[in-house]
Amino acid sequence: MGKNNSELLFPADHALKLYEQVIHYVTVRIDRGDWQADTKLPSVRSLAQELGVHRLTVFRAYQELKQRGLVYVKDKSGYYVHASPATGHAKYAGYSGHSSIDLTFHSESAHAADDPSVSAWRGMDGLSRVQSVNANFQFSKALIDPSLLPNRYWGELMMQVFEKHPKVAATYSSVQGDSELRDAMAQHFSVDKHFALSPDEVLITSGAQQAIDLISRSLIRTGDRVLTERPAYGPAMEIFRRQGARLTMTDIRPEGYDMEQIEWCMKTEKPRVFYINPTFHNPTGFTVPDEQRKRLPELAERYGCLIVEDDSTYDISFGQKPPLPIFAYDISGSVVYIRSYSKYVAPGLRIAAVTCRPQLMNSLLNVKALVDNGSPLLNQKLFLQYFQSPRMQQHLKKLCIALQIRKETMEDSLRDSGWTWTSPAGGLSLWLQLPSTLKPNELLAKCVQESVTFVPGNVFDPIGEEGETHVRLSYSYANELQIKEGIATLLRISRTM
Amino acid sequence: MGKNNSELLFPADHALKLYEQVIHYVTVRIDRGDWQADTKLPSVRSLAQELGVHRLTVFRAYQELKQRGLVYVKDKSGYYVHASPATGHAKYAGYSGHSSIDLTFHSESAHAADDPSVSAWRGMDGLSRVQSVNANFQFSKALIDPSLLPNRYWGELMMQVFEKHPKVAATYSSVQGDSELRDAMAQHFSVDKHFALSPDEVLITSGAQQAIDLISRSLIRTGDRVLTERPAYGPAMEIFRRQGARLTMTDIRPEGYDMEQIEWCMKTEKPRVFYINPTFHNPTGFTVPDEQRKRLPELAERYGCLIVEDDSTYDISFGQKPPLPIFAYDISGSVVYIRSYSKYVAPGLRIAAVTCRPQLMNSLLNVKALVDNGSPLLNQKLFLQYFQSPRMQQHLKKLCIALQIRKETMEDSLRDSGWTWTSPAGGLSLWLQLPSTLKPNELLAKCVQESVTFVPGNVFDPIGEEGETHVRLSYSYANELQIKEGIATLLRISRTM
Repeated sequence: MGKNNSELLFPADHALKLYEQVIHYVTVRIDRGDWQADTKLPSVRSLAQELGVHRLTVFRAYQELKQRGLVYVKDKSGYYVHASPATGHAKYAGYSGHSSIDLTFHSESAHAADDPSVSAWRGMDGLSRVQSVNANFQFSKALIDPSLLPNRYWGELMMQVFEKHPKVAATYSSVQGDSELRDAMAQHFSVDKHFALSPDEVLITSGAQQAIDLISRSLIRTGDRVLTERPAYGPAMEIFRRQGARLTMTDIRPEGYDMEQIEWCMKTEKPRVFYINPTFHNPTGFTVPDEQRKRLPELAERYGCLIVEDDSTYDISFGQKPPLPIFAYDISGSVVYIRSYSKYVAPGLRIAAVTCRPQLMNSLLNVKALVDNGSPLLNQKLFLQYFQSPRMQQHLKKLCIALQIRKETMEDSLRDSGWTWTSPAGGLSLWLQLPSTLKPNELLAKCVQESVTFVPGNVFDPIGEEGETHVRLSYSYANELQIKEGIATLLRISRTM
Repeated sequence: MGKNNSELLFPADHALKLYEQVIHYVTVRIDRGDWQADTKLPSVRSLAQELGVHRLTVFRAYQELKQRGLVYVKDKSGYYVHASPATGHAKYAGYSGHSSIDLTFHSESAHAADDPSVSAWRGMDGLSRVQSVNANFQFSKALIDPSLLPNRYWGELMMQVFEKHPKVAATYSSVQGDSELRDAMAQHFSVDKHFALSPDEVLITSGAQQAIDLISRSLIRTGDRVLTERPAYGPAMEIFRRQGARLTMTDIRPEGYDMEQIEWCMKTEKPRVFYINPTFHNPTGFTVPDEQRKRLPELAERYGCLIVEDDSTYDISFGQKPPLPIFAYDISGSVVYIRSYSKYVAPGLRIAAVTCRPQLMNSLLNVKALVDNGSPLLNQKLFLQYFQSPRMQQHLKKLCIALQIRKETMEDSLRDSGWTWTSPAGGLSLWLQLPSTLKPNELLAKCVQESVTFVPGNVFDPIGEEGETHVRLSYSYANELQIKEGIATLLRISRTM
């Protein structure tokens, strides 16, 4: 099965209806408890007979249910009802023939700890753990090696800031952020990304994560639905979950989204937010094509859904520039754009910019006023000093070259692994499919012992199939030598398994 | 009525019981809708007869209900049931004879905008507005005049930081905060404040406000009760309200708290958190005495309530040192301590420290990881450089002297106003009672026209009587000349009203 599943599972109209009925039939049986966990489903042949449909329809329905985590296959003897975490959580979303998965998350007040789908995302703890391992071969951090970041000029820039603004350390920033910095950002986005922004439409936050949190707290109420990509960036999901959101996931593939699935979902499930990372997507590295970017704001407007475009690695591209951000195509205030600069300029400063239209901005400002009353002014002035200097563009050019070399080094080292991946055109990581015999978590356990770390796929896709077969290897933190050695070790270990 | 009310309303035991019964009787009638908004209550005489109690008991009960906002007096013709905002929100808390007020706040999901008790706290918008007025005589900001803060040394300190840590701008802080800074803080608190802390019990946040937010998000679930002082710091209340808390307020007076009221409340209402600002309290300037500080952690432990001790101006004292923080007396992990350093050292850095015991710390770290993944490292290193230099203590000494002079200047200027206040032994503001003829909001409206600002009391006490009669004047932001001129203008305006 795997990647091409949804094409296979998208039959013609009539068959589609029957196929839906089969899925519905099975899901209801499981939901009602008629078919308990770990009991065997009827064979494809017998259910086809019972329901009067073609065997292929039942087969496809079973495959889809398997992908949704509702059933599993045992020793080729047949299909079985999945116990946890899927049962009761990965409910039938009602969508026809696509792998839209409903992870019903609960707000904290509902004692999330008792909820197995949540504990899956609690794999986030696992992420923190694996990232805090002091490994020699650090492929778990999608962060940039500090040696590749500008380190020499900050002292000098800082002195310039103190000269211009002697009382900068004694002064609060406004809640929205320093107006000089917002001016510069608005201009940059307008010229470089075609955003047509005023400085009032820019908010400075302490990193992209805070931006996601502010948006979540402004918009999400308990029980609201959030649509996101599958796989997805875990901490963002955890933020939405904590706010009480129910989550629906839609596949991201090398060629982009399934736009019909997205429209269907927006129409029927009315998600409040579609959280996306469409450029050099984390973890897959995929980039959503231009024609989809143009259509998304229209859909969002039509169905009253806000697109949260998290664009943290837009500038880390290895070939031609990626298509314009989705925000650039929005004319109705249906997109909010998050651009972290911490990540590839100065993580020690924690500066991100959020752009959106006035109504949402007001709401974000109210929350920002409460959560920290404005980001530190010193950092904003210092970042501005760098942002406006020619060093900014020089740094980005050099950084992209250095990261491309590391990426290619990692890909070369993996060439004979038999693992498969789509080579990313930018970003910080590879998303690799392992042979079916290799379990990511077991591999990780052994690798950690030899000082190699990576992130197992279930952190990004807690109940789906990709989570069980994929790993994320970041090439941005380790240098080339470490990449060569570390990947060699990784492959040696994998061969023993 | 007013301040001495609760003494008057604290009769002997038997009378107390009867008095309680009267309050209960009236409250239930109102709650059940038997007595509708704006209908007249039975006269004191007739209700006394009906219930077989002394007329004085009914009189006192009616007075108390008035103070709670449940009834009002019309033209001396009698007592009437209050419509909004009190009815349905300022419900009978069941407490005997004290003015414990229950503001039932709703979480955002309950569409807070429709809730009149909330729109009262939305006076917060008013606070932001009045503070953003670019007034010549700025008494609304409880912030320190940047000229009184260290401005000269930061450039030099920054160079020292870059020398020690060349990659500081390129490096993320840990979620908990820089370990060197936490070491220094733990030692400082242990030596200076008798805290007995390990560095693992210190968390660095981006300002005190973020600390309150993290605590609120870690602990408060929709419907949980939060106990706080009356009057109280508005933004903190807004944070708890947004988290879905229901609020109970307990008076803070020049001599401290009413400990019996607090115990009664902890016992019956089981508040999850008691949020306090016991040293140079904002806005009143009162300081809770040592014997109460010793007893509070015991109560908190007994009733499973966490004390959140927000101690933002502890070091701004004009005479002898204030008593030790309540945290110093806690042996059961029932207190979390928040110390902002931004406020009186470097607002542009946004550095606060939170100290608490391991269990709560783990929970705070989980939230901190989500909301911003750690405060900026650069700021922490820079602050540490200052914190460890002898300049820190020199600065504090000079700052206290300068602020004391400004306080005395303001008090001298107000000497003949006829307004009353308790002279604070530290902190940044005066809390003044105006003559009953003078309405704070009307006064403010006229003052703003002449470039004088202050904060009307209802921002700190939205439905209580003090809110209608008090104002907060901060002496920390304007210089002496501005204080003299501004207060003269203020008094001139007040005399025309």
